Amino acid sequence: MKAYQIQTAAGIDGLTLLDLPVPKPGAGQVLIRVRATSLNYRDTAVVSGRYPGQILPMIPLSDGAGEVIEVGEAVTRVQVGDRVAGIFFQDWIAGKLTREKIKSALGGAIDGMLAEYVVLNQDGLVHLPAHLSYEEGATLPCAAVTAWQALVDRGRLTAGETVLLLGTGGVSIFALQFAKILGAKVIITSSSDEKLAQAKQLGADETINYKTFPNWDEKVYELTQQQGVDQVIEVGGAGTLEKSLRSTGVGGRISLIGVLGGAGDVNHTQMLMKSIDVQGIYVGSREMFEAMNRAIALHQIKPVIDHVFPLTEAPEAYRHLLSGSHFGKVVIQL
Amino acid sequence: MKAYQIQTAAGIDGLTLLDLPVPKPGAGQVLIRVRATSLNYRDTAVVSGRYPGQILPMIPLSDGAGEVIEVGEAVTRVQVGDRVAGIFFQDWIAGKLTREKIKSALGGAIDGMLAEYVVLNQDGLVHLPAHLSYEEGATLPCAAVTAWQALVDRGRLTAGETVLLLGTGGVSIFALQFAKILGAKVIITSSSDEKLAQAKQLGADETINYKTFPNWDEKVYELTQQQGVDQVIEVGGAGTLEKSLRSTGVGGRISLIGVLGGAGDVNHTQMLMKSIDVQGIYVGSREMFEAMNRAIALHQIKPVIDHVFPLTEAPEAYRHLLSGSHFGKVVIQL
Amino acid sequence: MKAYQIQTAAGIDGLTLLDLPVPKPGAGQVLIRVRATSLNYRDTAVVSGRYPGQILPMIPLSDGAGEVIEVGEAVTRVQVGDRVAGIFFQDWIAGKLTREKIKSALGGAIDGMLAEYVVLNQDGLVHLPAHLSYEEGATLPCAAVTAWQALVDRGRLTAGETVLLLGTGGVSIFALQFAKILGAKVIITSSSDEKLAQAKQLGADETINYKTFPNWDEKVYELTQQQGVDQVIEVGGAGTLEKSLRSTGVGGRISLIGVLGGAGDVNHTQMLMKSIDVQGIYVGSREMFEAMNRAIALHQIKPVIDHVFPLTEAPEAYRHLLSGSHFGKVVIQL
Amino acid sequence: MKAYQIQTAAGIDGLTLLDLPVPKPGAGQVLIRVRATSLNYRDTAVVSGRYPGQILPMIPLSDGAGEVIEVGEAVTRVQVGDRVAGIFFQDWIAGKLTREKIKSALGGAIDGMLAEYVVLNQDGLVHLPAHLSYEEGATLPCAAVTAWQALVDRGRLTAGETVLLLGTGGVSIFALQFAKILGAKVIITSSSDEKLAQAKQLGADETINYKTFPNWDEKVYELTQQQGVDQVIEVGGAGTLEKSLRSTGVGGRISLIGVLGGAGDVNHTQMLMKSIDVQGIYVGSREMFEAMNRAIALHQIKPVIDHVFPLTEAPEAYRHLLSGSHFGKVVIQL
Repeated sequence: MKAYQIQTAAGIDGLTLLDLPVPKPGAGQVLIRVRATSLNYRDTAVVSGRYPGQILPMIPLSDGAGEVIEVGEAVTRVQVGDRVAGIFFQDWIAGKLTREKIKSALGGAIDGMLAEYVVLNQDGLVHLPAHLSYEEGATLPCAAVTAWQALVDRGRLTAGETVLLLGTGGVSIFALQFAKILGAKVIITSSSDEKLAQAKQLGADETINYKTFPNWDEKVYELTQQQGVDQVIEVGGAGTLEKSLRSTGVGGRISLIGVLGGAGDVNHTQMLMKSIDVQGIYVGSREMFEAMNRAIALHQIKPVIDHVFPLTEAPEAYRHLLSGSHFGKVVIQL
Repeated sequence: MKAYQIQTAAGIDGLTLLDLPVPKPGAGQVLIRVRATSLNYRDTAVVSGRYPGQILPMIPLSDGAGEVIEVGEAVTRVQVGDRVAGIFFQDWIAGKLTREKIKSALGGAIDGMLAEYVVLNQDGLVHLPAHLSYEEGATLPCAAVTAWQALVDRGRLTAGETVLLLGTGGVSIFALQFAKILGAKVIITSSSDEKLAQAKQLGADETINYKTFPNWDEKVYELTQQQGVDQVIEVGGAGTLEKSLRSTGVGGRISLIGVLGGAGDVNHTQMLMKSIDVQGIYVGSREMFEAMNRAIALHQIKPVIDHVFPLTEAPEAYRHLLSGSHFGKVVIQL
Repeated sequence: MKAYQIQTAAGIDGLTLLDLPVPKPGAGQVLIRVRATSLNYRDTAVVSGRYPGQILPMIPLSDGAGEVIEVGEAVTRVQVGDRVAGIFFQDWIAGKLTREKIKSALGGAIDGMLAEYVVLNQDGLVHLPAHLSYEEGATLPCAAVTAWQALVDRGRLTAGETVLLLGTGGVSIFALQFAKILGAKVIITSSSDEKLAQAKQLGADETINYKTFPNWDEKVYELTQQQGVDQVIEVGGAGTLEKSLRSTGVGGRISLIGVLGGAGDVNHTQMLMKSIDVQGIYVGSREMFEAMNRAIALHQIKPVIDHVFPLTEAPEAYRHLLSGSHFGKVVIQL
Repeated sequence: MKAYQIQTAAGIDGLTLLDLPVPKPGAGQVLIRVRATSLNYRDTAVVSGRYPGQILPMIPLSDGAGEVIEVGEAVTRVQVGDRVAGIFFQDWIAGKLTREKIKSALGGAIDGMLAEYVVLNQDGLVHLPAHLSYEEGATLPCAAVTAWQALVDRGRLTAGETVLLLGTGGVSIFALQFAKILGAKVIITSSSDEKLAQAKQLGADETINYKTFPNWDEKVYELTQQQGVDQVIEVGGAGTLEKSLRSTGVGGRISLIGVLGGAGDVNHTQMLMKSIDVQGIYVGSREMFEAMNRAIALHQIKPVIDHVFPLTEAPEAYRHLLSGSHFGKVVIQL
């Protein structure tokens, strides 16, 4: 089978396409023919070969979807022919995240999904919503579950509340789609009026071009009648945390998802003076994934795919993500 | 001014239309020209004159909306000309319900809204959403806040979940409208196919005519792939609690709102075997009311009014409610 | 090995002591030398042979503790020599209870612990707190976890609150011990002044002899300055639910754990008029068990054992439990 | 009457002892003979005369307790002779904090308690627990309520969990006392072995001298078997936030209470990688205060007072607090 490995700490150039033997499922395991994978910012750190806890060589990517083609002994949760996706933390089925569960992250602590065939434990899978293609299903495990945990499990976003989304990457666009079915009002930022127009089409209520309004936190206050928002999905980028805190109203919360390039100078005093919760979000459990899939199926939500690359162009897919020009998810087909 | 009083324990026939002096607002109080009131089942119990804690004579009805026409000293929350509604428990501003706060229920423990002019404390008011008429605003204080507390504050209903609504009275129809903006799937029952068709128009996903399916709990299980629902809004009626429990899935919850005619024979064992929460709901606080109004405004929800009666026909309004033929709210104009 | 089986629907007389082959652990499984088991009321229903979902013959009892003496392939959570207890629902590791997880109840849906050797999945175990004997450890899986879920996970009992406990059976005595470390005030009932004195020694703040005060709900109101309690651990018995509801204050909650002999006539109206939550409790997950064990270890709590029977007298242990004369847990040594 | 005013932005030297007329209670108001006040770090900022929102001259201090000596018209919550304390935010009775409620902070936005007589709204008071003196009662409004909200309402600390306290100031010592009645394990830091010994006497389980162990976060990990703590009460001091984050386990939370001297360099990435919540805490509501008082009364908790100054030495009291040599609360008697 064909698979990519990160063999050296050479970055994207260290990605090597190989022929590897097809793995065999043991007891309780499942062999999956992977049909599509998707990229997340984390993968651009992993590909450096210097990600914490990483052992080289390794197969990258946490996100993949495919078909079950063989099941090991004692497998009861899935059948041959089922359409499935892997879950990000293979051991985070439900309940609280623990140090042990963190060690089961696909495409980081353990081999990932950028291979034609992978073997996973039967507990490390979810069924795809019926209306989604493999490409669409492959976008869910990291970005969508992260957005869901942030808005639903931790943020408890409810109808009538206002949420601020930063940029139009994978997490933000899923958060937009979820916030709308939860009945919230959405303000979204981007440096591109074209992307903001796309976001409007997906239901965004208000848009802010942060190039036009570098002090976008002031614009957020204006758009919320000087109240600030109830929640921010903070996907990072240098210096956004300070403005996110300023954009948040009294009693609001911030889902901290990425801190690209560091958080910059942060005035923490406003956290207490406005009684703000900053909630670190690290993807989510299978139970969250399944609850999310139920909502995706009910509302027939279609993940927004920016571009689909063929397997042989995996390095280009990484570069496309790093360019920041995408709107939604970047997918690799296998 | 014109006002109705319950003067004797003679039921609807004891309602007497009187000329009473217009009250004066004291410090912190507000004089309101009431423009519309609405009825709830509770009012049919209060009109008996034998409601717990009631002292005759009294002006009935908890729900009313109107215009502020005079403010007392030290009033800061509202101004003359503001369009407002009273809150059900005048002293339940926020936080937990207490024995003391229960004693401030409009049109029960204290005089209510079926009068052309009423004086309320400035804290006992909310502003009406701008897109609502007085008639629409008058439907909110009891039924809508009850549905909101049940679904949002206590039920924490979220996208992808399924809620079961019983009948098409005021609480159920508000619950239908709220459940839709929260992203839930709605199953609703009625004895009338016509009302079920109306409910479909408002967004109900599945309908059950309980005359056609007397064992409607079995139908609910069928419609939920044998999982049962996540939440039931139990507005009562003899014997529905047992079927509501049967309709509820493992880990589900039931909002107990009315127990007309007693709950009947109930097998409580399934509550523990299915780990069900039964949550007694008693209207809600001003804080809930305001959060609800924000959602109503954002989604431009219009309360469903069945019929508007003129003031002189208040007794007919009571009789219409008791007939059970309504769909949504019964309103009296002043 | 020696083990009891329920072979016919003959009740306690149908319990048969047999010689059975020692089972072998498969992949992911663990062989345990059971040293002690404990009884719960549920076991007196299971022994009837007519428990829902039961298939005869079967080995009874959900609760047991012992030593790991052999581990199958791929076992990582425990080692030979570890002191462990089984968890009630073998598949309820964390998160929400589901229909599927319910089918994994030890000594009900599947074979239980009344055998010298049992094989369990490695995920279906917890380590015993170091200060507990096997007899003490064997009391935890059902009664203690039930009390913990009721007070902590669902009830969120906190310091300064008041909890009402009914009787001195296993769940109530664990609830007493847990309520004290949570900082709550405890009121407990019994028909025996001697047992009430024992409860006082364990930290009960107030006691009520329900023979002396048949209207014990009135006594509860008196002891709480007419406020009612914040939580009731309702372990059932005919007709207690009505009095438990009366004993509960506005905004309180009732943990519904047993409904022996039916709940009797219940006036559900007070549930809504006092905004009470009635929470069905069905034991709990391994995650709850582990959190509980941490608290038991920190506070060096010792489970209260009423009597220890040798294996050959298992039927007497059942009869002793049914007699209702116990205070705390009934244990069988193996 | 005697009262201090901050008359200029001259710091402690700007505190002026004056003779002012005794105020009169209006409708709904209460006249209190203040018997004791207590100091918080915030007061050292307010005394600068440059606190946000401050208008000079003003009477400082949020915390005070005394006797009701006159009640205005329509006062029902208290009577002459009642022993009461003011609440920090006069308008935060219950529910969520809002921008409006923040504007009612005693001794900041409005005149405070460092006067022999003050008039407060009847809603802005709580009754003192019966076993407390005025000096003890005066310590509660800011520091104790802050600790209570952090541990109970937001932190939901429960038995068996571990909490880390930084230093031995007012908030930390209340947090120690509350954590013990909640059943938690307490680790506390100080630069003084003598203070650590005092903390042990109050129930602290583990102590760390941060002068001896400048990398006290490593010591915390050692004391928690490399798990980290469940909660940190972060009262600030330059650079502690980073170490607090390091001390926190996966899924833990940090109550952010003070950020004296700025938070310093903070690596926010661990917040998401460990799924940590950082919760800004700003004192609390009257409802929280009352729940706390119930627990204080049940457990007969005595606030720890470091030193009591006479009214004429108020400036010395400020200086003593700033010296950092205190253990518990600094009180001024009137």
